[in-house]
Amino acid sequence: MELRRTAQEYEMPHQLTYYECDETGKPTLSMIMSMLSLVAEAHGESLGLDGKKIHSTGGAWVYGGFEGQLSLDDLHYGDQIILGTKGTAYNKYFATRDFWIRSLDGKKEYVRVRAMLVFMNLESRKIMAIPDELIEPYQSDYIIRIPHIKRPGKIGEDDEINIRQYHVRYFDLDINHHVNNARYFDWLLDPLGEKFLSSHQLTSFAIQYDREVRFDQDVVSEFCQVNDEKSLHQIISNGQECTLAEFSWAKNK
Amino acid sequence: MELRRTAQEYEMPHQLTYYECDETGKPTLSMIMSMLSLVAEAHGESLGLDGKKIHSTGGAWVYGGFEGQLSLDDLHYGDQIILGTKGTAYNKYFATRDFWIRSLDGKKEYVRVRAMLVFMNLESRKIMAIPDELIEPYQSDYIIRIPHIKRPGKIGEDDEINIRQYHVRYFDLDINHHVNNARYFDWLLDPLGEKFLSSHQLTSFAIQYDREVRFDQDVVSEFCQVNDEKSLHQIISNGQECTLAEFSWAKNK
Repeated sequence: MELRRTAQEYEMPHQLTYYECDETGKPTLSMIMSMLSLVAEAHGESLGLDGKKIHSTGGAWVYGGFEGQLSLDDLHYGDQIILGTKGTAYNKYFATRDFWIRSLDGKKEYVRVRAMLVFMNLESRKIMAIPDELIEPYQSDYIIRIPHIKRPGKIGEDDEINIRQYHVRYFDLDINHHVNNARYFDWLLDPLGEKFLSSHQLTSFAIQYDREVRFDQDVVSEFCQVNDEKSLHQIISNGQECTLAEFSWAKNK
Repeated sequence: MELRRTAQEYEMPHQLTYYECDETGKPTLSMIMSMLSLVAEAHGESLGLDGKKIHSTGGAWVYGGFEGQLSLDDLHYGDQIILGTKGTAYNKYFATRDFWIRSLDGKKEYVRVRAMLVFMNLESRKIMAIPDELIEPYQSDYIIRIPHIKRPGKIGEDDEINIRQYHVRYFDLDINHHVNNARYFDWLLDPLGEKFLSSHQLTSFAIQYDREVRFDQDVVSEFCQVNDEKSLHQIISNGQECTLAEFSWAKNK
């Protein structure tokens, strides 16, 4: 098994467990996103950028959004896979990062995700300039105008919407005392229901995190089924829109 | 790294991911129980008893209950651990199985769990005799009177109870189209609240599964805080008691 490991790129092997998969035996989007966080973290650590180092700057990386394509047809729980990531570009305030999940022999790519990140001052909770010592080790390209990632479509005022309410649970919090980014996907997708979810597979998605959902709050997950191939979603908490998402679907064969 | 692998025993390595841990950086009980299912499954597969073989008998293994001790003080996310299991005893209708999580050098045991299993006919949903071909390969002891595992204490009629309601979500279902046993622990523990959960650690537990929680139902999780070191819990769904549990606690140092 050959792993790509340079300053820019990092790969690690992973075996899909049943608890990372849904009832169709394929990994859930929230678990895919968790695995991708895992490889990003391992990448940082391989360059000496561990949690302690990041924390010492007074800030934290925050994902602004993701866009991704999935092709999970040949992927099943128990499979050995490779998780990969690459720091692609940055400027003073923004950084982009690519992620992928591929087969051991490199012949299949199951997942390809592009992420946009900013750096947040943990005291003021405001965006701050990315500290040089946290970005230079990745040797990615400095680009003044970073290309945007895809923005999710917005539910229209006259669209028919479906609503479901959730409550943030203690076990939704991760070690940073925040609701983990990946958790949002369970709230976003669950309202689509078993009938739809078990007969369709996700082919692409875009998500934009605008405001953080805080612990101990209610979460309202709304969606509009545009057609059999597209759904638009938003998460409202504390009366404010927190997250927008768009999903594309294909019928299971 | 030496792994114990005989017909009776099976061990496998595992690296703790951040998404298997809570905000204190220690694995959640639901994730611990998921990991233990993983090693039990791998044990079966190593003896030719995969899902297909089990399914061909018309039945499925069902956990009746668990009792366990935990000592997670020195365990943190990122750690390499060993998951282990042993088929200990069986008779016509019951089987017992031990589980453990230990350090690589075998000097520390973080988790020790004992499980009681029965075999359920998938059509009648009733207990059936354990098929010989599914139990003999484990070479465990045939014992007419299998020692019971600890029964959880029951909430008394006059006890002060706290109640929280949940709804089964699509992503709570596993590949067997059932709510996974491990999920129950999130419902059981979440109502204790962040203040208690982040300042205490679980030292032992007992759980008894009496009825299955079905998909798309509401779940009522009730608990009584007997004292700072003990809590009694039950899960009610569809008007019936489904699960009893008892947890012992110690204050974090």
